[in-house]
Amino acid sequence: MMKILMNDKGKKFLIGTEDLHTEQGYIKQEEIASSSPGDVLKTHMGREFHVLEANINDYIQLMDRRCSIILPKDLGIITAYTGLGSGQQIVEAGTGAGAATIFLGNLVGENGHVFSYELREDFSQIAEKNVKGFGLENVTLKCQDVVEGIDEENVDLVFLDLPKPWEVVEQARDALKSGGYLAAYTPYIDQVKLLTRILKKRKFSDIKSVECLVREIEVKDKGVRPKTRMTGHTAYLTFGRKV
Amino acid sequence: MMKILMNDKGKKFLIGTEDLHTEQGYIKQEEIASSSPGDVLKTHMGREFHVLEANINDYIQLMDRRCSIILPKDLGIITAYTGLGSGQQIVEAGTGAGAATIFLGNLVGENGHVFSYELREDFSQIAEKNVKGFGLENVTLKCQDVVEGIDEENVDLVFLDLPKPWEVVEQARDALKSGGYLAAYTPYIDQVKLLTRILKKRKFSDIKSVECLVREIEVKDKGVRPKTRMTGHTAYLTFGRKV
Amino acid sequence: MMKILMNDKGKKFLIGTEDLHTEQGYIKQEEIASSSPGDVLKTHMGREFHVLEANINDYIQLMDRRCSIILPKDLGIITAYTGLGSGQQIVEAGTGAGAATIFLGNLVGENGHVFSYELREDFSQIAEKNVKGFGLENVTLKCQDVVEGIDEENVDLVFLDLPKPWEVVEQARDALKSGGYLAAYTPYIDQVKLLTRILKKRKFSDIKSVECLVREIEVKDKGVRPKTRMTGHTAYLTFGRKV
Amino acid sequence: MMKILMNDKGKKFLIGTEDLHTEQGYIKQEEIASSSPGDVLKTHMGREFHVLEANINDYIQLMDRRCSIILPKDLGIITAYTGLGSGQQIVEAGTGAGAATIFLGNLVGENGHVFSYELREDFSQIAEKNVKGFGLENVTLKCQDVVEGIDEENVDLVFLDLPKPWEVVEQARDALKSGGYLAAYTPYIDQVKLLTRILKKRKFSDIKSVECLVREIEVKDKGVRPKTRMTGHTAYLTFGRKV
Repeated sequence: MMKILMNDKGKKFLIGTEDLHTEQGYIKQEEIASSSPGDVLKTHMGREFHVLEANINDYIQLMDRRCSIILPKDLGIITAYTGLGSGQQIVEAGTGAGAATIFLGNLVGENGHVFSYELREDFSQIAEKNVKGFGLENVTLKCQDVVEGIDEENVDLVFLDLPKPWEVVEQARDALKSGGYLAAYTPYIDQVKLLTRILKKRKFSDIKSVECLVREIEVKDKGVRPKTRMTGHTAYLTFGRKV
Repeated sequence: MMKILMNDKGKKFLIGTEDLHTEQGYIKQEEIASSSPGDVLKTHMGREFHVLEANINDYIQLMDRRCSIILPKDLGIITAYTGLGSGQQIVEAGTGAGAATIFLGNLVGENGHVFSYELREDFSQIAEKNVKGFGLENVTLKCQDVVEGIDEENVDLVFLDLPKPWEVVEQARDALKSGGYLAAYTPYIDQVKLLTRILKKRKFSDIKSVECLVREIEVKDKGVRPKTRMTGHTAYLTFGRKV
Repeated sequence: MMKILMNDKGKKFLIGTEDLHTEQGYIKQEEIASSSPGDVLKTHMGREFHVLEANINDYIQLMDRRCSIILPKDLGIITAYTGLGSGQQIVEAGTGAGAATIFLGNLVGENGHVFSYELREDFSQIAEKNVKGFGLENVTLKCQDVVEGIDEENVDLVFLDLPKPWEVVEQARDALKSGGYLAAYTPYIDQVKLLTRILKKRKFSDIKSVECLVREIEVKDKGVRPKTRMTGHTAYLTFGRKV
Repeated sequence: MMKILMNDKGKKFLIGTEDLHTEQGYIKQEEIASSSPGDVLKTHMGREFHVLEANINDYIQLMDRRCSIILPKDLGIITAYTGLGSGQQIVEAGTGAGAATIFLGNLVGENGHVFSYELREDFSQIAEKNVKGFGLENVTLKCQDVVEGIDEENVDLVFLDLPKPWEVVEQARDALKSGGYLAAYTPYIDQVKLLTRILKKRKFSDIKSVECLVREIEVKDKGVRPKTRMTGHTAYLTFGRKV
């Protein structure tokens, strides 16, 4: 179990191996270590911090996010459209900072596994720190080029967050079990077009591309309305299934 | 493992305990039973049917859906926004036909559990048939009124698909562990407003309401475009967290 | 002024030169002819029909719409984004059933003019009937190929609803006054891409492409919510300005 | 005709009665005055500025916008859904900075008229400056409370941009001609609900509420995609028609 602290404004803090220093004062490491979720700690300035059991969203929010990460909305759609569940085997490329890796690892659990490929060593190192920090033991990070081949077989999902996912369609097909899914995350519609052509050529079925828009609703005393600003686009999600 | 058959037009068929009769001819039960994913069976009319390992989406699509079900897009957002994963304990109300129940049961796996409340006996029976049919052993269906209390404690998520979710906020709070989530699915904005007020009153944190729109993209030789028709609205999703 | 009749369910009827026969009974032509907006007429079965002054939306809804027409939402965006107003000169291609033609003719008024090109004679004839029926005298329909040239000069807007609008960019540029707009309606993103490239090449400024989504809100006693079904896509609108 | 200048980066400048001073140098007033659209003027630093005939969007963009203005998308939807056109009579309340006033005045032309009510004197003065600056002679600004009554009769449209539009429904009904429209701009869904109830009570027909989302498409060499950020919400538009 991982703990986080939350101040009275809802701001959250990841707990490391040292004292926590904030603008509202500091809290000693020993005090944090001996606390339990539900406890309230006080800083030397008397400000209250709630101890919470960190969930995965807290962690991904607070971890090292040097490279841009996939938003929860898109991870949710991938989960639901591919029927992800506990115990599955997943191949991912590229790892990036590891946000999707951690999400998927948490989701498939100890009976499942995530194998994540990343070409860039600097990203792979950030991801490793992040995955370890969350305490996942069912993730294998591979600093190698997925275009040169996927080592795994019989996997449930190959998830591609790459500029040219079409270069990996054949490798993905070999790695997937019958009925398994390929899912790709691509910002440009041109990528969707090319990928779809290759998926058709490689006899994938259930080929589908979607985009997901999430609107947040503001509930105030004055009234209810969608927020003024929203994320207009992250990426298209393309799915195909091996038959 | 559950198998389904798919004809050459992509139409899928759930396999029961009898011969499969379709407009493209029939296939004997024994032949289906001895087949493996990846095999191709032929009907007596010579039409080819692929054997696939059914995934959860196939199953939910094909099962008895007499009551309206929650779409994958909304289940995906709930999963991602509450950080669901393998091994979690979930309380759901009401069960309906069991689509969300099966999705959640598949997701939390054998180390997790879904306790699902449903007041109407006819729905509960449909759900039971559906849950059993999918082979989940980590689901407990309860034909009882969740307003009168939640038996479980220390759960990760209470998911409410009820007309008046605000009647269950206090019970949900008692059932949740510290850091656990309440999520509610409500079609009307008026419900969002009232629920939010009660969540604030009961000191939930991270209160947020969203709606999720999924647009499907058509990739044809003529060009690429979003589909002409789309689902404009299913429901708002409201989240709150126990601290 | 054009009159329409509306029954008690809100259904509207265009008035021709004959008696009106409906499922709620008939009304004599003379009676309709002598009525004024605000009057209530009764059918021989005693059902009430309100006399309304037809506005352009009534008319476009009820006219001969054999070819698909541009929705009001898109006409509205074109109007607003190009700053259309009374007295302007507009070139349109192709005419289709004339919905946009009538909308634009009504908008620019007697001091303005719409010149509308259509290659297909059958469409041109439907459009002529529709334009005349609405009583516009500031519209010139031209059954000729716009690719071969635009006769007009110094116009405020060239509006293109054609499969290959890029073939007309140069002609449009010649026809436009300085500061005038080209607007194109294209269903496919591939068309947007190609058109944009040509607009840049031809030194258009303020190049912009948008899509417009309209969601209808249902206000019922049970609650307020967006409608379940909506139009997911009609076309992209691309704009460019001659400088 | 109104002129504007545009520099080589597409930035536009309104022309007053003085020399134009910019970061790229200055241009003498006499030189500007004697220029025509299409001309290219040079600053004392040799930078080129294009002379353009200003259209209404340029003007609204560059005028004094001290109070928040209605976006073109919403003005477009109002235009299309109410069938606005040259020669119509419009009542507006409140005026604000006059953006909608100018848009509507430009649209209805010299045979039409816009009567715009504004309670706050400071807004009314800004609007007056803006309306005059654009050279419209078919606009009457009224610094008076529309709740106390609308002086005009037989108008085509009453457009309400007020916090409590339901207070003006009866006055609007009296002012409208048969078949005329009421349109209201309200940010909150609660306003939509209350207004709709009052419109029904007052026997308006064709009652409809919508929201309009515009997504801008980015066409770059790398590919085509919707923009990352978009306006998630401005206001709901509610329509009703007098019968």
